[in-house]
Amino acid sequence: MTIQTAISALGASFAERLSTAEAIRAHHGEDGSYYSAILPDAVLFPESAEEVAEIVKICAAEGCPLIPWGVGSSLEGHTLPFHGGVTLDMSRMDRVLEVVEEDLLAVVQPGVTREALNTELRHTGLFFPVDPGANATLGGMAATRASGTNAVRYGTMRENVLAAQAVLADGRIIRVGSRARKTSAGYDLKNLLVGSEGTLGIFTELTVKLYGVPEAITAATCAFDGVEGAVDAVIQAIQLGIPVARIEFLDEVSIRGVNNYSKLGLPEKPHLFLEFHGTEAGAAEQAEMFGEIAAENGGGDFAWTATAEERAKLWKARHDIYFAGISLQPGAKPMSTDVCVPISRLAEALLTAQADIAESHLLGNLVGHVGDGNFHAGLLLRPDHPEDLEEAKRLAGKWNRLAVSLGGTITGEHGVGRGKRAYMADEHGDGYLVMAELKRALDPKNILNPGKVVEIN
Amino acid sequence: MTIQTAISALGASFAERLSTAEAIRAHHGEDGSYYSAILPDAVLFPESAEEVAEIVKICAAEGCPLIPWGVGSSLEGHTLPFHGGVTLDMSRMDRVLEVVEEDLLAVVQPGVTREALNTELRHTGLFFPVDPGANATLGGMAATRASGTNAVRYGTMRENVLAAQAVLADGRIIRVGSRARKTSAGYDLKNLLVGSEGTLGIFTELTVKLYGVPEAITAATCAFDGVEGAVDAVIQAIQLGIPVARIEFLDEVSIRGVNNYSKLGLPEKPHLFLEFHGTEAGAAEQAEMFGEIAAENGGGDFAWTATAEERAKLWKARHDIYFAGISLQPGAKPMSTDVCVPISRLAEALLTAQADIAESHLLGNLVGHVGDGNFHAGLLLRPDHPEDLEEAKRLAGKWNRLAVSLGGTITGEHGVGRGKRAYMADEHGDGYLVMAELKRALDPKNILNPGKVVEIN
Repeated sequence: MTIQTAISALGASFAERLSTAEAIRAHHGEDGSYYSAILPDAVLFPESAEEVAEIVKICAAEGCPLIPWGVGSSLEGHTLPFHGGVTLDMSRMDRVLEVVEEDLLAVVQPGVTREALNTELRHTGLFFPVDPGANATLGGMAATRASGTNAVRYGTMRENVLAAQAVLADGRIIRVGSRARKTSAGYDLKNLLVGSEGTLGIFTELTVKLYGVPEAITAATCAFDGVEGAVDAVIQAIQLGIPVARIEFLDEVSIRGVNNYSKLGLPEKPHLFLEFHGTEAGAAEQAEMFGEIAAENGGGDFAWTATAEERAKLWKARHDIYFAGISLQPGAKPMSTDVCVPISRLAEALLTAQADIAESHLLGNLVGHVGDGNFHAGLLLRPDHPEDLEEAKRLAGKWNRLAVSLGGTITGEHGVGRGKRAYMADEHGDGYLVMAELKRALDPKNILNPGKVVEIN
Repeated sequence: MTIQTAISALGASFAERLSTAEAIRAHHGEDGSYYSAILPDAVLFPESAEEVAEIVKICAAEGCPLIPWGVGSSLEGHTLPFHGGVTLDMSRMDRVLEVVEEDLLAVVQPGVTREALNTELRHTGLFFPVDPGANATLGGMAATRASGTNAVRYGTMRENVLAAQAVLADGRIIRVGSRARKTSAGYDLKNLLVGSEGTLGIFTELTVKLYGVPEAITAATCAFDGVEGAVDAVIQAIQLGIPVARIEFLDEVSIRGVNNYSKLGLPEKPHLFLEFHGTEAGAAEQAEMFGEIAAENGGGDFAWTATAEERAKLWKARHDIYFAGISLQPGAKPMSTDVCVPISRLAEALLTAQADIAESHLLGNLVGHVGDGNFHAGLLLRPDHPEDLEEAKRLAGKWNRLAVSLGGTITGEHGVGRGKRAYMADEHGDGYLVMAELKRALDPKNILNPGKVVEIN
């Protein structure tokens, strides 16, 4: 029962698709988190669900950890092999298997990235909306229950994965969910797997929802004098049921960064970045209604995008917030952390986080998918300054507890991985023990991405 | 270890709130299904989560089944005590605990009915949309993952329960979900409990989403020459992203029934009943767009409601489809069964079901929440004609398998209960075994609503 025995057995079956080369292992030993690199013992590139099942059976027999891997963009150590083992790189399972336009769905292999899917869809008039920023794989996005800027309108991976095929810890291949838009047929295994971070099963196929490309899309930036005004405008827009497609908050420091890095030339004040989708008349009405709400809350300086290119530039600037942060402190690496609170408590949470950053020795910025009450802090860590990481972890921990105390959650979209595990009991109480009981029931040998979400050893 | 020992122990703690009276037991021994009455050994009326926990612990110690009960409107034998035991009537836990207008949510006890909640909300400008027809309790609706006519716009209980408190089979009280609109914090226990039909936990509190009452609501009926035209109109409306609030199909027999019972005076053709929500301009635009689509698909005879009273009459007629059915064959009792298919296969499914009914000796009608691909058959069973029930079960079974073969599900909203259990393996394959493994992990003594969803004895 050793990892090396498993690797020998896997090598016999998979030959050159099993790699123990240093460079390959190193590539799979890093993610977007603050953890130092940890190299897996081997990397394996499966090509089918049946192969994944065979791999799982071999690893189960030898007690060898298996870590599913998409592009390595996760932020809390989800894909790092803390217990060693074999990383399962899903990049060869990258086919769009079917697009059913009438049913607004696509069937994909888990290694398909969201950009690749949208490229495949470009002649259909349909698109896949979920957009966490990184060009992640759909398998990885399903595993972390990802969302992003337009979840406020289109939902998260929870709402947008209709069905899946997955390999369980004993090698069984199961199908969960269906192509029907709703079901009451028993326990919601689909949503048990979505967000389980590869700890209960390995996705080998996903059926996802698609949407018609809106007839009209308009986007704008809007400046506010303070955080409260921006958040109050968001609350009123949501209460009025304006179906905003994106409503993003950027604080002053973020604006400084995007001005620096993406040359947006915006006033250095808190901003909302907005997008409206609809018919021509509908999108215009939404924009007008939001304009009135913004004016009542001290918002102004609306800058409307006139072309698709300008709109793309705006959202690229928002997605490049990581690099915008670095531009404020060259050489530093941002640590990104996220929480999500009820929208009525969002201003309080943002102001507390801003004050915490101001009191700390770190430079940091706040951005948020504020229609959902979800925000991120980017804290800039200097290399060779271990005190920066310690302080960043202290702040992240404080905000996790703050979010729970406000009725929210320790992570809106990044997931638990290893990094948030210490705060799970704060949020879930005995429910966290129930998660461990489920993990024990479905993966008693603890071979699927062990040590993530829950530790059962 | 007997039910009687448990009842004695419960009587010692709960005195007159434990009843073994025949009339009380009889009231709790029937539901909306075709099953004959089965009386529980006792009925208990808890008043708090702590009491439910105490009850569960006593029943666990004695191996006594516990069946949570709302108003008894479920349709597949969900609340019938096939293994005997104690029915837990939640009607004394009927308080709306909190309404947070800014966060568009309400916190309720499980015995609150959907109408009671909406009455409580009437001065807030908010409403709770999920509407399965019956004035069910929110606890029961969460347990069966209920939906109904406006799920196409507002989602099902899966999307509308944000958080819950529940008592597990060992008496632990846990909280699942939060007030945040989204979360990636571990396994989705909230959605594991929603739809678990009281077999994994007993809801003692629910946090549900609310929505602003739309500025404008318009409703209409629209006649079609055939099923295909009506379904094609639905498909095109959904593809175009028209956010219809309700889009209900009624076949010719249903129209005959509602004309009979509710005096609607509609032409005896397949119909769609529609409702649009939005701003004045938005609702008008939706109606106009749908009108064009309908015309292209042979739809016409639009009858628009002019007042809220007319609209209420229309939807009452739709909800009274049970009695409309009976009016076509006085003395008969309808058996209601539901399936849900991908919308591209809906016309095929409806036409097959119509042909099956025509070939059988039964009278039956079809209605559907067709925006979701969900439809119901009401099959009229004459008392003292056991062959009617046998034939109805044969047809329901055929349609369950048909739905699975079309990529759909054996139940879109009614749930599994006892009635659909025989078809679960057809839909879920080995996934059904996984459901049993979860039940064993969380309720090893099988005391929570045993024999529903899965049988583990």
